[in-house]
Amino acid sequence: MTKNSVAPTAAVLLIGNELLSGRTQDINLAYIAKRMVEKGIRLQEARVISDTPEVIVSSLNELRSRYTYVFTTGGIGPTHDDITADCVAEAFGVALPINPDAKSILMAYFKEREIEPNADRLRMARIPEGASLVENSVSAAPGFQMQNVFVFAGVPRIMQAMLDSVLPRLSEGDVMHSITVTCGVGEGTIASPLRDIQAQFPSIDVGCYPGKMGGDIKLSLVGRGTDQQELARLKMVLEEMVAGLG
Amino acid sequence: MTKNSVAPTAAVLLIGNELLSGRTQDINLAYIAKRMVEKGIRLQEARVISDTPEVIVSSLNELRSRYTYVFTTGGIGPTHDDITADCVAEAFGVALPINPDAKSILMAYFKEREIEPNADRLRMARIPEGASLVENSVSAAPGFQMQNVFVFAGVPRIMQAMLDSVLPRLSEGDVMHSITVTCGVGEGTIASPLRDIQAQFPSIDVGCYPGKMGGDIKLSLVGRGTDQQELARLKMVLEEMVAGLG
Repeated sequence: MTKNSVAPTAAVLLIGNELLSGRTQDINLAYIAKRMVEKGIRLQEARVISDTPEVIVSSLNELRSRYTYVFTTGGIGPTHDDITADCVAEAFGVALPINPDAKSILMAYFKEREIEPNADRLRMARIPEGASLVENSVSAAPGFQMQNVFVFAGVPRIMQAMLDSVLPRLSEGDVMHSITVTCGVGEGTIASPLRDIQAQFPSIDVGCYPGKMGGDIKLSLVGRGTDQQELARLKMVLEEMVAGLG
Repeated sequence: MTKNSVAPTAAVLLIGNELLSGRTQDINLAYIAKRMVEKGIRLQEARVISDTPEVIVSSLNELRSRYTYVFTTGGIGPTHDDITADCVAEAFGVALPINPDAKSILMAYFKEREIEPNADRLRMARIPEGASLVENSVSAAPGFQMQNVFVFAGVPRIMQAMLDSVLPRLSEGDVMHSITVTCGVGEGTIASPLRDIQAQFPSIDVGCYPGKMGGDIKLSLVGRGTDQQELARLKMVLEEMVAGLG
């Protein structure tokens, strides 16, 4: 239960030109981040990259060698700009055949809705050899897990369903709990006492986040750590410090 | 005016544990992305990293050697977890002295508001040697430009003011314009004609983005490129294709 306890790590790879043109506001990272906190998995970094095969392949290989888990979002639909499955297969050096289980899932979904199972739609059944499927309870077309890489859709509702369905597969670490104390003074006023408090609690990560300006709450003082007793003690110390400013 | 025309490139480095814990939803990337599109600068990637000195320094060095511009957000306030300026100085191998101009700006701001200019607040006047200041029209404490690296605050309103103030300093490239055509069918239905259309317009990046499900607009077909005549032609072709589905 110290800062050095070994916890699984993770990285997120957000794939899509629309994120780098400002067309789409990503909300997947924050969702994944919260689930990782709950599982005690340390999310170490996220990258936003374009729909460029070489960039996707090299990013995948860099991140999957560095972290326990990699989660990708985007690029697994039926259109020409959906190239994530191809890139994952290339990164792992495996083929990308039609997966019989994925095909069955899609065919059943299409039949029920009287959708024509054309060649483009069946592209979504192409799964890298050796990968296992990830359930899509929203629109059927599955994601997949290739070793430590989880490949999800970019549409938030689908991504969330996919991530939730694989959470039981993930190793858990000591959960990072957090406490928050708010106050109405500026950062410069509490910087010095806060520095001393951080020094008193070396196993806790103490952060200071400005909130809405002009309102009553100017700052949120946040402690994050695995030791809940220490966090409770920190909370009291922060509250005393804030009260002393009053 | 082709895909190969040389345009400046950029990367964004979003710094802060709060982004990787899901506590804070980033909105800075999309803002920066839109301004880059307007300037004809190609935003190639973004990274979200923690408040860890080695990670910040190595990310800075990797990105600044690879792209025309790097924009960082976060970590330039007065508290102990604000370490971006220190890391930029380390990445460039320069000192981090109190900058007289930054100090004057802060002192004037503090005087006007009867704020005590304590040591922590004056930390915000520490600027890497050789850097130029970036104006903060919201709360005075400046950002800075060190060679091709621009260091901004994390608070969106301040970040936006800082970015807007440096836009005139940036080189411009051919602007990537875009056109959008919406339609009410699923991706699988238009994947095949869309693939043919992309092949007809090699200088344009054609993307297909699912919208809200259940509504009338299921898909946005987006073309992005520098040649506005080609884009206008693409728009007509897409509209004809969509009308043909009706």
